Amino acid sequence: MTAPAPLFDRLALIGIGLIGSSLARAARDYGLAREIVCSSRNAATRAKAMELGIVEAAFADPIDAARGADLIVLCTPVGTFGDLARSIAPHLKPGAIVSDVGSVKEAVIRDVAPHLPEGVHLVPAHPIAGTEFSGPEAGFATLFQGRWTILTPAVGTPDEVVERVAELWRRCGSNVERMDPAHHDRVLAITSHLPHLIAYTIVGTASDLEEDTKSEVIKFSAGGFRDFTRIAASDPVMWRDIFLTNREAVLEILQRFTEDLTALQRAIRKGEGEALHDHFTKTRAIRRGIIDARQA
Amino acid sequence: MTAPAPLFDRLALIGIGLIGSSLARAARDYGLAREIVCSSRNAATRAKAMELGIVEAAFADPIDAARGADLIVLCTPVGTFGDLARSIAPHLKPGAIVSDVGSVKEAVIRDVAPHLPEGVHLVPAHPIAGTEFSGPEAGFATLFQGRWTILTPAVGTPDEVVERVAELWRRCGSNVERMDPAHHDRVLAITSHLPHLIAYTIVGTASDLEEDTKSEVIKFSAGGFRDFTRIAASDPVMWRDIFLTNREAVLEILQRFTEDLTALQRAIRKGEGEALHDHFTKTRAIRRGIIDARQA
Repeated sequence: MTAPAPLFDRLALIGIGLIGSSLARAARDYGLAREIVCSSRNAATRAKAMELGIVEAAFADPIDAARGADLIVLCTPVGTFGDLARSIAPHLKPGAIVSDVGSVKEAVIRDVAPHLPEGVHLVPAHPIAGTEFSGPEAGFATLFQGRWTILTPAVGTPDEVVERVAELWRRCGSNVERMDPAHHDRVLAITSHLPHLIAYTIVGTASDLEEDTKSEVIKFSAGGFRDFTRIAASDPVMWRDIFLTNREAVLEILQRFTEDLTALQRAIRKGEGEALHDHFTKTRAIRRGIIDARQA
Repeated sequence: MTAPAPLFDRLALIGIGLIGSSLARAARDYGLAREIVCSSRNAATRAKAMELGIVEAAFADPIDAARGADLIVLCTPVGTFGDLARSIAPHLKPGAIVSDVGSVKEAVIRDVAPHLPEGVHLVPAHPIAGTEFSGPEAGFATLFQGRWTILTPAVGTPDEVVERVAELWRRCGSNVERMDPAHHDRVLAITSHLPHLIAYTIVGTASDLEEDTKSEVIKFSAGGFRDFTRIAASDPVMWRDIFLTNREAVLEILQRFTEDLTALQRAIRKGEGEALHDHFTKTRAIRRGIIDARQA
């Protein structure tokens, strides 16, 4: 039995942080590309990527990584995508596929698609996986296993092009689903963006407390708080860009959240035990669903 | 080398859920009491506790468990403590110690202390440990290892009495700290009660979504949301009682949280990237503190 042929000749990862380096490792370990290169503006990051042996070359200029690649994956914060696309576009090989790993999809299409020349395909992707750690040393090849990757290609993108990107993620161990980009952004606003916003808020509230209380908050964090601090340790630039680019969906779900929080606050103030109990009971069904879906 | 002598002759656990059964297991495994008994109103729970072999007897009436015990630990939701104390008080042995594992401490003292006869000591305790699971089968002996237990004894409680309870928790592997009860309630409001309230809220917001979006929320929960569902899967009666009995401290910290959330919401609406980035950066210091304190 022989291993399946590589899916791509040259895979270019623009940015080599947690997700980019995990994809590099998976592509290397599972033989998904003949050549894997990356770019990073940061010299230390480039040196680290080379030292880890996860790429054959690490360039300062994304153009040098993208040149001659048949798959280019943008793995930097989404706020950089417009400039990146404009910069690499003239150097892309005909038939090349541009993809990404960004957590928002409408803004990515808006910022990237207009720059791409005819004959270059855009297949936006979002692997829903991660940890609270950042940088090339934080990645690992199995990060995507059992998780979902959502693809949001434009109507009219050739099926075989979408399928090549889908196959890349499947070979990384991921389940793949296609979705409308606006719908993706609404779903992720609740499953990911709002939880991060809330976690950042509560940890910020705690860090504004008086110093002596703050040290106790750290000491006694095992009661729930530490889980929020883990979420709120994610990369600040990445999250700034997510909130700026998925503004409307986030504000809409935040509005619902605030209404619900106000209702619970009133129930506490009025001592309405039954209302609290009912609310705390109904949330269990969702947890059961997540356990049943093996995403727990 | 011989094992240290048991600290108590008869340990009575009123309630045998996650915490009570973990304490029973630890007391059995580490030889902390000559006899361990429990009470539960629920016949199935009593049968399970006996089947697990973690108690010598399981009574329906807390009086039967408390009778003759030299340490009685209330392990039911804090809303039950007043009635329990009134009920068992006439049957307590002189010199007995009454303790608990409740997540609030001022209300416990207010509800329990007035019922106890002279010569019986109250040493309120709060082991800061837990999981999202409930019931006697969910417990394990090592639950308290490396965690903190806070004691909030009244001024004037004899040192040797407090020390016996402290030693119980230390032998369970816990670190022990004394604290003023009102201060405990303020610290826990932020490290535990607010995180749970927020988690219950966001999972509730999600469960009110249209059915098709809800199934996607479950499917794509790995982006942060699933951590909240775990927290929001905790016992509803226990949490109802916590919010009803620590109302003021919870409402006070909730007010600060809401102000901070409103500020972030405005920054998102106005597209203020620098304000978002600054906020998302300052929260990292707290995470580092938790990792350094080995509570991560």
